[in-house]
Amino acid sequence: MSRVVVVGGDAAGMTSASAVHRLLPDVEVVVLERGHHTSYSACGVPYWVAGEIDGPDGLVARSPEEHRERGIDVRLGSEVLAVDVDAHEVRYRDLAGEHTLGYDRLVVATGAGSIRPDLPGVHAPGVMSVKDLVDGQQVIDRIHAGARRAVVVGSGYIGIEMAEACLARGLDVTVVERESTPLPIVEDEIGEVIADAMREKGAHMVTEAAVTGFDVGDDGAVTAVRTDEDTFPADLVVAAFGVVPRSELLADVADLGVKDGIVTDDQQRVLAPDGSLVADVWSAGDCVVTHDRLTSTRIHLPLGTHANKQGMVAGESVAASLGAAWSGRVFPGVVQTAITKFCDLEIARAGLGRAQADDAGLDTVSADVETTTVAGYYPGAEPMTLWGLAERGTRRLLGVQLVGRGGAVRIDTAAMALWSGMTVDELVMTDLSYAPPFSSVWSQVQVLARALVKQLDQ
Amino acid sequence: MSRVVVVGGDAAGMTSASAVHRLLPDVEVVVLERGHHTSYSACGVPYWVAGEIDGPDGLVARSPEEHRERGIDVRLGSEVLAVDVDAHEVRYRDLAGEHTLGYDRLVVATGAGSIRPDLPGVHAPGVMSVKDLVDGQQVIDRIHAGARRAVVVGSGYIGIEMAEACLARGLDVTVVERESTPLPIVEDEIGEVIADAMREKGAHMVTEAAVTGFDVGDDGAVTAVRTDEDTFPADLVVAAFGVVPRSELLADVADLGVKDGIVTDDQQRVLAPDGSLVADVWSAGDCVVTHDRLTSTRIHLPLGTHANKQGMVAGESVAASLGAAWSGRVFPGVVQTAITKFCDLEIARAGLGRAQADDAGLDTVSADVETTTVAGYYPGAEPMTLWGLAERGTRRLLGVQLVGRGGAVRIDTAAMALWSGMTVDELVMTDLSYAPPFSSVWSQVQVLARALVKQLDQ
Repeated sequence: MSRVVVVGGDAAGMTSASAVHRLLPDVEVVVLERGHHTSYSACGVPYWVAGEIDGPDGLVARSPEEHRERGIDVRLGSEVLAVDVDAHEVRYRDLAGEHTLGYDRLVVATGAGSIRPDLPGVHAPGVMSVKDLVDGQQVIDRIHAGARRAVVVGSGYIGIEMAEACLARGLDVTVVERESTPLPIVEDEIGEVIADAMREKGAHMVTEAAVTGFDVGDDGAVTAVRTDEDTFPADLVVAAFGVVPRSELLADVADLGVKDGIVTDDQQRVLAPDGSLVADVWSAGDCVVTHDRLTSTRIHLPLGTHANKQGMVAGESVAASLGAAWSGRVFPGVVQTAITKFCDLEIARAGLGRAQADDAGLDTVSADVETTTVAGYYPGAEPMTLWGLAERGTRRLLGVQLVGRGGAVRIDTAAMALWSGMTVDELVMTDLSYAPPFSSVWSQVQVLARALVKQLDQ
Repeated sequence: MSRVVVVGGDAAGMTSASAVHRLLPDVEVVVLERGHHTSYSACGVPYWVAGEIDGPDGLVARSPEEHRERGIDVRLGSEVLAVDVDAHEVRYRDLAGEHTLGYDRLVVATGAGSIRPDLPGVHAPGVMSVKDLVDGQQVIDRIHAGARRAVVVGSGYIGIEMAEACLARGLDVTVVERESTPLPIVEDEIGEVIADAMREKGAHMVTEAAVTGFDVGDDGAVTAVRTDEDTFPADLVVAAFGVVPRSELLADVADLGVKDGIVTDDQQRVLAPDGSLVADVWSAGDCVVTHDRLTSTRIHLPLGTHANKQGMVAGESVAASLGAAWSGRVFPGVVQTAITKFCDLEIARAGLGRAQADDAGLDTVSADVETTTVAGYYPGAEPMTLWGLAERGTRRLLGVQLVGRGGAVRIDTAAMALWSGMTVDELVMTDLSYAPPFSSVWSQVQVLARALVKQLDQ
C-alpha cells in the first residue's frame, strides 16, 4: 500500500490530505503537524481576540479527531526535522522522541513564519505575532492579565485587524507604521481614508516611524516600543512585521523564489533549481511562491484562499500519480485579490499597485473616484473611494482598490475583470446588477472604469 | 447647422442627447418629452412611496432646467404623434397645438408601457401602474387619502418592491401571482425563500391565481380584485402585469422583435425588416430589443442600466455620423443581471433560468447550495441560498440566482463569469476576496460552482 505523508495540518496540508483520501481511500495518508490544531482559520483570530466570536474551537473547521474518523492519520505535536528526498523519508520529533517515516509521495505544507527582526527585546514576553490559535490565546491571556496599552507594529492586514480587536477590548492602541499611511499594500489615496478612520476610532496612528527596539521590565516582559521618533509604553505588542515562507525542509533540493518560497509547477509539484521535478514531492500554501497573472512574475502571497486551492490541486495531482483519474485541475495563479476591514470601514484591493506596475515596466494611467456604497439618494449611502490603474496601449485594467463603509465585496467584480484580462472599455459595458439599494445605475467599479477610459483617451 | 431630435427624456434619451451635445456642442439637440420630468430614477419610486427617500425631486438626476443650461433644448409636455422617416420630420403635440419638426438625426427613446389586460374595471381609479414619477405620486396621494388595503397584482421586481413599500406605509398588503412562487423570473428554489419572507413580514401571498377583474364602488374607484380563486378588497391596486416596448412610432419602418421591441444593430441604429438601416434613425432603452450573450437570441430587457449604456452608444454613434470622432463603443448585449430586495431579503439573478436554457435547447445540469452571507462563525452570518445552471459538454456557467439577508451584490461575480463565457471549473479557481467578515474561504459563488462541477462530473 502506498503512503502519502503531508507536513503541516492547516489549510493546504489538510485539503491535500483530504483530496488524496477522497480519491484513493485505500492509500495511507499521514499528516505530521507540529501544533495541536488542524484546519483552523488563522484569519478569524483577530475577531476571536475582539470577543466577537468564540474561540479557539469556533475557528476550527475540522478537528484532528474528525479527520481521523474520516481515515486520515493525523499526528499532532510532530515536528518534521528533515526530508531526505533520495531515501523518500522524513525525520520527525514528537514527545516520544525522533522517528523516521518513509513516503511514496510527500506534500510540504509548512506555511509561513512571522518575521522577527533582530532588535533588542524582540523576543521578550508580551511581544507576540498572530499567526495561529496559540498566538491568539496568548494575546487574550495578556489582556485578561490586565494589559491596558497595546502597540501594534506594522499595519498590514493583521496589524489593522488586531488594532480593531484591541480597541474592542477597551485597550489604548498605538499603531506604528514605517510608511506614510496604514496598510501600505494599498495606495496612499486609500490609506489616508484608513488613517482617518483609525484616528476617529481612537487609535493612535504613528507613521514613517521605524521600530528600534523593545524596553523590558524587571520581569523581562515588554514595557515599551522604541522608535526613531518616540517611545510608546506597552503592556502588549502585536509584532506584525510580515511573514516569510517556511521552506527550510526543501532548501537543499528545491528552487527557491521570492522570499525563499518554494517554486512549483501548476500542479504544485516541487521544482529543482534546474527546472526538473523533485521526484514525488509537492508543496502548497504559504510556503510556496505562485505567479501573478497580470505580470507573469513570481509572487509570495500567503492567503488562505490560495492555500485551499493549491492544497486541492496538490492532493488531486498526488492521487493521479498513484493511479487515480486526474481532474486536470491546475493552480492558475493570482490577481492579488484581498479584503479586510477596520471597524466599519471596509477595504479591498485586486491587481497591481502603482509601484508593482512600475517595477514591471508597464506604462499606466491611474484614476480615483468618489462614489457611494448605494444610490446617492438611498438611505444609508456612504462615500466609497476607488482607485484604479490601467495600461496604455492595451487599455487593460491593471488594478483596483476601494474603501468605504460597506460594499467592499465589489472588489470581486474587478478581480474577475483582471482575471480575464479585460479592457476598461469592456468593463464599462458589462452587465452588472443595479437597483437603488445597491448602487447607482453605473456600478461603483464601472464609475472607476469610466474615469480610467477618460484618462486613457486624454 | 444639423439638428438631432430625441423622442423621450428619461435615461436613454437624455444620455444620448448629452453624448451628442458633449461631442458636438454646435449641433442643435432637441428633446421631446411628453411628461414633465427628465433623467429620473423610476427604480427609486418604490422607496419614495415607502417614505424612505424624498421625492419626486430626489429621484431626478438632472432636471429639464439643468439640461437646458447645458445647451439641450428640452421641450416638456410634447408628445410625438408620428415620425416620417422619408421626410425626416416628426409631428408632435403640446399645449399650443400640433407642430412639425425636421431632423437630421433621430433618436427614439420612448421606453416601455405598462400592460393593462382587457379586464373589467382595469382602468378604474385606484388601479395604478408604477412606471414613472406621476404614478408614484398617485399611489402616495391615495395612501394619504386613507387607503388601508393594497393589492399588488403581479410579483415581478416592481410588484415585490411595491409590496414592501405598502407594508412600510402600514397598509394591509395582498400580492396576487399567477405562478406558484413570487418573482417568477427566479427559480422556485429562490422564490420559496421570498414567499416565506413575504409571509413573515405580514404580506398575504396568493399564488397560482389569475385576476379576472376589478370591482368598483359608487364613485367608480376600485374596491376589490377578483381572481379565479377569491376576491380581495382593495383601496389601492398596484397593477404590475409587466411592460411592453413603446415602438408604435417606428412600427411601419422598423423590424420589430420580441414583444414588438425595435430591432437595432450594435450601434443602436434602427434596422428595417430586410436588415438594412432605417436612414438616420437610432433607438435605445426600454423600447428596443437587445441580445442575450449566452444564447445569442433577442430579448426585451427593460432595465435602466441598459438604457443608460444604449443611450451613450446611440449618442456617440449619432455624433460620429455628423463628423465627430467615434469611440468605437457598441452595445455588447446582456447576461440578464438583475437585483432587488424585499425588506431585508436581497435577491439577484444573472444568466439563464431553467426554462430559458430549455427553450434554447441547451443540455444542462443544475445545483443549489446553502451557504452563509459571511463566514459561518462570524457574527451576523445569515443563510444564503444559491441556485446555478451549467452546460454539459462545454461546462460553461449558464446562470446563477441567489437570495439571502445580505451579500446579493455577489451576483456581479457570476455576471462577470457569464459575460466571459467562463467554465465552472475556471470559476472555482478564480482569485476572489476572502476574509471572515465577508465570506468563507470559498466565496459563495465558488461554493455553487463547486457543486456544479460535482454535478457535471457525475
